[in-house]
Amino acid sequence: MKFGIVIFPSKKMQDYANSFRKRYDAHYALIPPHVTLKAGFEATEEEIGPITKKISAIAGNLNPVQLKVTKFSSFSPVNNVIYLKVEPSQELENLHNKLNAAFDNIQEYKFVPHVTLGQDMSDAEHADVYGTMRMNNINFEETADRIHLLYQLENGSWTVYETFRLGKDA
Amino acid sequence: MKFGIVIFPSKKMQDYANSFRKRYDAHYALIPPHVTLKAGFEATEEEIGPITKKISAIAGNLNPVQLKVTKFSSFSPVNNVIYLKVEPSQELENLHNKLNAAFDNIQEYKFVPHVTLGQDMSDAEHADVYGTMRMNNINFEETADRIHLLYQLENGSWTVYETFRLGKDA
Repeated sequence: MKFGIVIFPSKKMQDYANSFRKRYDAHYALIPPHVTLKAGFEATEEEIGPITKKISAIAGNLNPVQLKVTKFSSFSPVNNVIYLKVEPSQELENLHNKLNAAFDNIQEYKFVPHVTLGQDMSDAEHADVYGTMRMNNINFEETADRIHLLYQLENGSWTVYETFRLGKDA
Repeated sequence: MKFGIVIFPSKKMQDYANSFRKRYDAHYALIPPHVTLKAGFEATEEEIGPITKKISAIAGNLNPVQLKVTKFSSFSPVNNVIYLKVEPSQELENLHNKLNAAFDNIQEYKFVPHVTLGQDMSDAEHADVYGTMRMNNINFEETADRIHLLYQLENGSWTVYETFRLGKDA
């Protein structure tokens, strides 16, 4: 089974992200808007018990993280992916690093916390859509006090396996 | 915000259910296959903290539940809804009753544990599809050791807020 670890931002930010994802993200129906902390990794149903314990220990020893979003950004020209840029912070970096270190520690990309709004666009569509999106003024600031471990179904959609509160008093 | 409480069955059962939902359930993309324990109820973000505590206490005091599915069924003629029938058990009934008692205790229908496969069908389509589905032999038997509290986004899709393990040693 394929698992992943994410933060779901507030309903407000998710609704905002979905207003764009609906048109520009083919994953719109597969998973709610999210910040990926650990991209898809394979594990068996037997392995997931110990993995759950590891994540629980990591989450319990960290504090809730701030999610501050003030602008749109893009991974172009590497990928025509437009996203809400979550301001990097030591807390987020730490959470990401600890989760990755607990597993394979394989990272294809540098960690850039973000909520994807659109992907799989042609260069022309990307330029057009990105140009329009960037004219919106946005300002989200919220605290994320939990992370979720998800697994992927055969149709590509994701189901939550477990929630972990960040913080010792969780 | 609108909240709900569900059990997600195993990936295997979810994949099986989705093979039908894809064609016959307009909610296919809004939520993974599930057994509803407490249908949508309204609560504010302030109220959800105490509600979470209540659910946590209830879940911690109950044992994991068995989900046994051996046949298809339908709510017709009341509703043209086809579903995987989860065999009623004292454990499931108890879980459902305790969760409902903790809230408004309003129940529109008698509790019939099920995983919806198809809905919003005409009488003719229902008869046709149900007739075909019933020819499948199915036999799922599994243990559900967790329940999930979800909230609904503006687009109708559901995001998990928190997971609760069933059982004292959770």
